[in-house]
Amino acid sequence: MSLSTITSNAQIAFEQYISFSHQQRAAFLEAIATNIESLGDELIETASQETNLPAARLQGERGRTCYQLRMYAAMLLKGDYVDATIETAVPTKTPPKPDIRSMFQPMGPVVVFGASNFPFAYSTAGGDTASALAVGCSVIVKAHPAHIKTSSLVATAIQKAIVDCTMPAHVFQHVSAAELLMNEIDLGKALVQDEAIAAVGFTGSRVGGRALLDYATARKNPIPVFAEMGSVNPVILLEDIIATQAEAIATQYAGSITLGVGQFCTNPGILIGVQSKALNDFAQHLAKAMKAYTPATMLHSGIQAAYLKNSTAAMEQKGVCVYTDQNPDAENAYPVLATVDANTFLANPILSEEVFGPYSILVQCKDIHELKAVWTSLHGQITTTIMGTDKDLLEHKSLVEKAFLHAGRVVINGVPTGVEVCDSMVHGGPYPASTDSRFTAVGVKAVKRWLRPVSYQNWPDQLLPEALQNANPLNIWRSIDGQLTKDALK
Amino acid sequence: MSLSTITSNAQIAFEQYISFSHQQRAAFLEAIATNIESLGDELIETASQETNLPAARLQGERGRTCYQLRMYAAMLLKGDYVDATIETAVPTKTPPKPDIRSMFQPMGPVVVFGASNFPFAYSTAGGDTASALAVGCSVIVKAHPAHIKTSSLVATAIQKAIVDCTMPAHVFQHVSAAELLMNEIDLGKALVQDEAIAAVGFTGSRVGGRALLDYATARKNPIPVFAEMGSVNPVILLEDIIATQAEAIATQYAGSITLGVGQFCTNPGILIGVQSKALNDFAQHLAKAMKAYTPATMLHSGIQAAYLKNSTAAMEQKGVCVYTDQNPDAENAYPVLATVDANTFLANPILSEEVFGPYSILVQCKDIHELKAVWTSLHGQITTTIMGTDKDLLEHKSLVEKAFLHAGRVVINGVPTGVEVCDSMVHGGPYPASTDSRFTAVGVKAVKRWLRPVSYQNWPDQLLPEALQNANPLNIWRSIDGQLTKDALK
Repeated sequence: MSLSTITSNAQIAFEQYISFSHQQRAAFLEAIATNIESLGDELIETASQETNLPAARLQGERGRTCYQLRMYAAMLLKGDYVDATIETAVPTKTPPKPDIRSMFQPMGPVVVFGASNFPFAYSTAGGDTASALAVGCSVIVKAHPAHIKTSSLVATAIQKAIVDCTMPAHVFQHVSAAELLMNEIDLGKALVQDEAIAAVGFTGSRVGGRALLDYATARKNPIPVFAEMGSVNPVILLEDIIATQAEAIATQYAGSITLGVGQFCTNPGILIGVQSKALNDFAQHLAKAMKAYTPATMLHSGIQAAYLKNSTAAMEQKGVCVYTDQNPDAENAYPVLATVDANTFLANPILSEEVFGPYSILVQCKDIHELKAVWTSLHGQITTTIMGTDKDLLEHKSLVEKAFLHAGRVVINGVPTGVEVCDSMVHGGPYPASTDSRFTAVGVKAVKRWLRPVSYQNWPDQLLPEALQNANPLNIWRSIDGQLTKDALK
Repeated sequence: MSLSTITSNAQIAFEQYISFSHQQRAAFLEAIATNIESLGDELIETASQETNLPAARLQGERGRTCYQLRMYAAMLLKGDYVDATIETAVPTKTPPKPDIRSMFQPMGPVVVFGASNFPFAYSTAGGDTASALAVGCSVIVKAHPAHIKTSSLVATAIQKAIVDCTMPAHVFQHVSAAELLMNEIDLGKALVQDEAIAAVGFTGSRVGGRALLDYATARKNPIPVFAEMGSVNPVILLEDIIATQAEAIATQYAGSITLGVGQFCTNPGILIGVQSKALNDFAQHLAKAMKAYTPATMLHSGIQAAYLKNSTAAMEQKGVCVYTDQNPDAENAYPVLATVDANTFLANPILSEEVFGPYSILVQCKDIHELKAVWTSLHGQITTTIMGTDKDLLEHKSLVEKAFLHAGRVVINGVPTGVEVCDSMVHGGPYPASTDSRFTAVGVKAVKRWLRPVSYQNWPDQLLPEALQNANPLNIWRSIDGQLTKDALK
């Protein structure tokens, strides 16, 4: 099948799919989850072979993926996400105010580029696909070349759900560069620039995400791209907590830095503290705990090579000391803890770049002003974390209050790894954490990336979408003349 | 003052302004409205001289502008717009689920480019400025060169409100190319590409809006641009209503096409119907009603010249007939009604371009399929309208249901001119109506252009923003563990 056939099929399927009810789309998402579970051990084994991730981790990730699909199904049954808003007519106004109602509608066919580090949860049937299918968009997934067998298996589960639920045949399509005899970059560009495509979801590198944004904006009719591109997730270590709890925090952070061989976009890559004996003790404890960690194999040889290259480059910079003693090599992703003083860090942009893997650099500042300068110098982040006692947090209240300027999620006294899938999760953040800080890639609100508001002016009740009809047949929360209510409109 | 001083002042003012409460920001917006009203006749006279708009129209627009400012003040006092979402901790989960809360926060300094056709409501203190100041962004307005005295006067009203309310001095700044000794395009580009700027609002031409989008995306750190760029606002004329109500609809549409010398981005520029004697009668009635209209002077000589050029170009295309008899000239913006058959229209892209002014073209189709083909061939629109009897609408139910694919607002049996400022208004639409169909430029929800969600994980209650504190001190609607409530969290 040619690419233009695939994209025009996606457009045709979209125009059919918009007539399906919330209930029908919810049942479709549930069927996808069930069918993924039915793939059983074969899916876990295939993914483990392709990604080197251990079975237990993959079982957990499969659980998360199915949970996400069911969460969006529940969102559909609840129905409130359409943001139904009604303003009734005021014929006595000059000029008369007409009846105007608005709700979210789907944008159109969405292209999804999955991540290598989450072969299930941020890939073929991951959050982007699930959220787009939920709201009525058709989806084309470009298979990630690092786990193409896994991706194809998951695609069969979705295709079976299409048949099970008698959905439009091309509401989901799975394409790969190999099948289409194209290279990866050309295929990505062609998909993003195809006239039928309305939006793009991407999880991966900054170079990749930025290229897609540029392709999408260069179109005759630009379309939105939501790319989540990783982060260094700075952690602020305030003085009192380091003076009193250095060892406990070191243990906690050794776990976070080495979790999953450091292959998370929320991995804490930069720690920032004020010089003291206690901070030095903390570094020693942290290095010791990291050294005790036995590294597993990384996702693929390209990532292992990049970790070796990037961590080595950082360690070789002038003024950088390394506290761990075993350096990464071509086979082993040994964790690295580096340290540097603030002035050296501020003068060398290489040191603030993400090193994807179990690596972190501790920036030692001479005082809190220098700490703020280091923090503020960093790019936009997915997360930032503040570690502090009550005394610390009160003393630095303005720093705490302004923390949101730096990141999509601000953690106090915790670790940034672990992204809870829930209504209040923001997984995104100012560029280059994502291409648009107004959206999140995780949680129910991730659907907003694929929705546009539409006003219906002066419509006869029976022609309106159900969400906007007087009787409120979906029993959803609506704003009527400024008041939230589930009541029918009389 | 240099441009870099202006933008860095905007950044400093933003970081101060975020500490101000909803009440304080509401009082500031109210003060701006009061101060604009206090400018009295001087403002109306200045604007009338610069724009040729009659005093009555400008008084109405001033009223709308002050209404918008007060609407955003009311939004702040209500407080729900922050979309407060709370998920409580579940320590028994594996791994334990932390307490995570989210809300909208302002993005940063916003640059606003106003429109020439609305010197108040979409300009200096217009919807973009009001919505950005409301949510806590600082604003830099680039004065529109076509009404620079009006813009400067309105700026004094805002600057007085800054003093009245002891706001940060640079929370609003007014710049012009003349003052900065730059040309308009260079200044626009420099503002959009300045590192301190977080987002851009624009109302105007497609060329202008597209250039700003391209500049913003070419930055090292791309930022969002919301540009509202006008539209041809296609009107579908179904058969039964034309057969039964041709004259009444002609009268209604003559008013809409000529309103304000056709200088509205919701002006109905394309009418689409199925060939019949009744449609021909409709065209005759419409031409007659349009001919009875005495044209006023357009906004400025550039717009008058463009109307002359673009309407003449359209009228000269092969296959185009003109039903009005007095053509526009260099001084008089006489209304034009042209007609063409569907095949000629579809083959000639010039005919689907916007002619800004009192111009409309009636596309005559041989059947409903051709009508759909013409409709679908058009670019994204701010509005589309369907005129039909109950019989028409039921007979063409699928056409009605899919109308939202074409536009941000779909009107049934009305005219597209007249943009109600309310909660359910969508003034935007698929490109090139706007640069991002996920947002609206008018109504309370226009604030979403300048807001990003932020997650607060594991925060002590007293350090959280008020909107997320357990006690719900703002008394706002919040989602707590999936349930909408105004209750405090115990």
